[in-house]
Amino acid sequence: MTYTFTQSKALFQRAAKVIPQGIYGHFNPATTVPGFYPYFISRAKGCRFWDVDGNEYIDYACAYGPMILGYAHDRIDEAFARQARNGTATMPPSTLLVDLAEKMVEVNDCADWAVFAKNGADAISWAVALARGYRKRDKIVLAHGAYHGTQPWAGTNHIGVLPADRADVLMAPWGDANAFRRVVEENKNRIAGALFTPYHHPVFEPQALPAPGFWRDMRRICDENDIVLIIDDVRAGWRLDIKGSAHYFGFRPDLACYCKAIANGYPISALVGTDRMRMVAAKAFQTGSYWNNSPEMAAALACIDEMQKIDAAAICDSRGGELRRGLEERAAAHGLSFRMSGPNAIPFLHFTNESNFKRAQLFCRECSLRGVYFFWHHNMFLSAAHTEADIQKTIDVADQAFQIVKDQFGE
Amino acid sequence: MTYTFTQSKALFQRAAKVIPQGIYGHFNPATTVPGFYPYFISRAKGCRFWDVDGNEYIDYACAYGPMILGYAHDRIDEAFARQARNGTATMPPSTLLVDLAEKMVEVNDCADWAVFAKNGADAISWAVALARGYRKRDKIVLAHGAYHGTQPWAGTNHIGVLPADRADVLMAPWGDANAFRRVVEENKNRIAGALFTPYHHPVFEPQALPAPGFWRDMRRICDENDIVLIIDDVRAGWRLDIKGSAHYFGFRPDLACYCKAIANGYPISALVGTDRMRMVAAKAFQTGSYWNNSPEMAAALACIDEMQKIDAAAICDSRGGELRRGLEERAAAHGLSFRMSGPNAIPFLHFTNESNFKRAQLFCRECSLRGVYFFWHHNMFLSAAHTEADIQKTIDVADQAFQIVKDQFGE
Repeated sequence: MTYTFTQSKALFQRAAKVIPQGIYGHFNPATTVPGFYPYFISRAKGCRFWDVDGNEYIDYACAYGPMILGYAHDRIDEAFARQARNGTATMPPSTLLVDLAEKMVEVNDCADWAVFAKNGADAISWAVALARGYRKRDKIVLAHGAYHGTQPWAGTNHIGVLPADRADVLMAPWGDANAFRRVVEENKNRIAGALFTPYHHPVFEPQALPAPGFWRDMRRICDENDIVLIIDDVRAGWRLDIKGSAHYFGFRPDLACYCKAIANGYPISALVGTDRMRMVAAKAFQTGSYWNNSPEMAAALACIDEMQKIDAAAICDSRGGELRRGLEERAAAHGLSFRMSGPNAIPFLHFTNESNFKRAQLFCRECSLRGVYFFWHHNMFLSAAHTEADIQKTIDVADQAFQIVKDQFGE
Repeated sequence: MTYTFTQSKALFQRAAKVIPQGIYGHFNPATTVPGFYPYFISRAKGCRFWDVDGNEYIDYACAYGPMILGYAHDRIDEAFARQARNGTATMPPSTLLVDLAEKMVEVNDCADWAVFAKNGADAISWAVALARGYRKRDKIVLAHGAYHGTQPWAGTNHIGVLPADRADVLMAPWGDANAFRRVVEENKNRIAGALFTPYHHPVFEPQALPAPGFWRDMRRICDENDIVLIIDDVRAGWRLDIKGSAHYFGFRPDLACYCKAIANGYPISALVGTDRMRMVAAKAFQTGSYWNNSPEMAAALACIDEMQKIDAAAICDSRGGELRRGLEERAAAHGLSFRMSGPNAIPFLHFTNESNFKRAQLFCRECSLRGVYFFWHHNMFLSAAHTEADIQKTIDVADQAFQIVKDQFGE
């Protein structure tokens, strides 16, 4: 075990002088096991990155989702760089705006139209405004524990948030159509939209897939009550089904939001919608300085095409299945209660006999020190760049880490 | 006069099928003179772009500000592309996060620290949350007619906006310290922050520079009432003074927001602040999928360095001064009442004897048909890529357009 973090720590000291917290948001080292993880990378390629101390990792963060085809993917990088030679931000926009909107309509099951922005939260906030504008109602229903970005209404950031920011947000448990129905009945004719993730991926908790009939019931309740059904597919999108995670789970939302894997890490997000949402979308004024940048659109076009060509979602599912089975088998062999929850392509690891994450943190720490970058607090991500050999190597590292967990905790 | 827009119009028909409004936001053709302007570009280089019909333009939109060194600038594009070979979005972040924060602290007059995002509005909303969190007060004062993005509280988007979104926003006229003082006194101990642009650049109106003493008075009122002074330098930033527009006008805000020209069109924005705002900034959880992308940081580092090296602000001021003098002289020679308001580098053109923009629209239309891309509704932008010859050619085109305005309107 030779992984040390001298350069990471030195750089973090420099960072702390000029950046509040040193590193902020979901990139903050507090989300790892501080002292046993790298704080800064020097480069990334394929499914690997190298930190500033020269340590190499097989990466299951995938930048929290954006990387789906492998870091520094030649085809995507070339598509971006080639288009950048024609300009980045421009006014008027480039023809790629039309090409990409047509592509989204072609591939996504609920897209009759598309618009583009920079953050997942841009698309989600846009969708919330459209639901309110369409229904001329105020209330939006969210699920407890769901993450939709750091805007004040989303409930994640607590600094500088006012009661008014959350006054028209109603909460319901994810995955319980009867509970949702009760919220709807208690707020009859006041709910504009229901904003949910396609499956439940909270932080610090195992993930939950929809029970049979859940989405059919949710769609029916929305239809019966004239509620716009919005799917936040920012995290799951592209890894379950290129047609959208709603298609994967067998239903059709009115609006769906994409980001992250849409362009393999280049900054672009998308909101798509059905025909009945088109008119209100045409009336809403939403924009940003870089929302029509063409190189990001070139990267998205290349990425979507490549994902189709190689069936990236199937590869992520397959590699994730191997990882899940391997880890669960090795853990069981050590007598540990361990499970990977959620889809194969987006797993969350946890020890089922603990809720304080002590085993999970030790496990992740020992994996980090052996070149496998796992998360204990948040779901992980598979990519199409992970090979069977990478998964096998990961399982072997995990086996050593499980032994250490067993030695320390007994079970 | 041979400029036609056949391909632009055909492409817009295609766009309208898959994009609400065809083109949305501030890129919408309704902001030009529809039918006499291009709707889509094919490429851009230096201070010029070429539309899909092959028409060439000297561009004064500069993508609404992001382009400051010239489109497809070799040094900036190479810095981005080189870093992209090390990964785009990553977790952990790259070392460029620290390099760029240090650079912001080095160059910007009010920056003791810096954080980065994607949209100008990300930085501005972050600043508003910090002001509220720091002061534990609710109210924010904005100026009538000021643009701060399309988030619900900013008052630009009217679809799906609730009364609650604007309940804690107070309005004051820009440039009137006594009026601001009255708002402060009417809301004693309730105002967290004052959010203003460094000079007034409304849409559809001439621009206004601060009167002598205005910012000294504003700073004093904020200090006397414990109000956080936030400067939205998204539009003006980098074109007036590399140290920040507040430095240019001789004052120091508590927080300042940057975007647009920071990376010559690559998507990154920044929030900087003084030491007293550091602690609250360290407590706020704000983040986004691509906020730590390293290639955009490489582009920003290269762009800031290049702007320093060539003194981009001085070039923009110089070229803008030539343009202003040339246009005002030619207009006067035709007997027209014409003025360029605001800074040389960011001028707004208007005919002073009209408020319906008929002359301005005709003037811009005739310039567009002769290869000069001017705006009538919004300020324009100079760049360091505009040469004296470009300005001279522009003035000659404008002279022909002024003649047509004179022929049609008399004066």
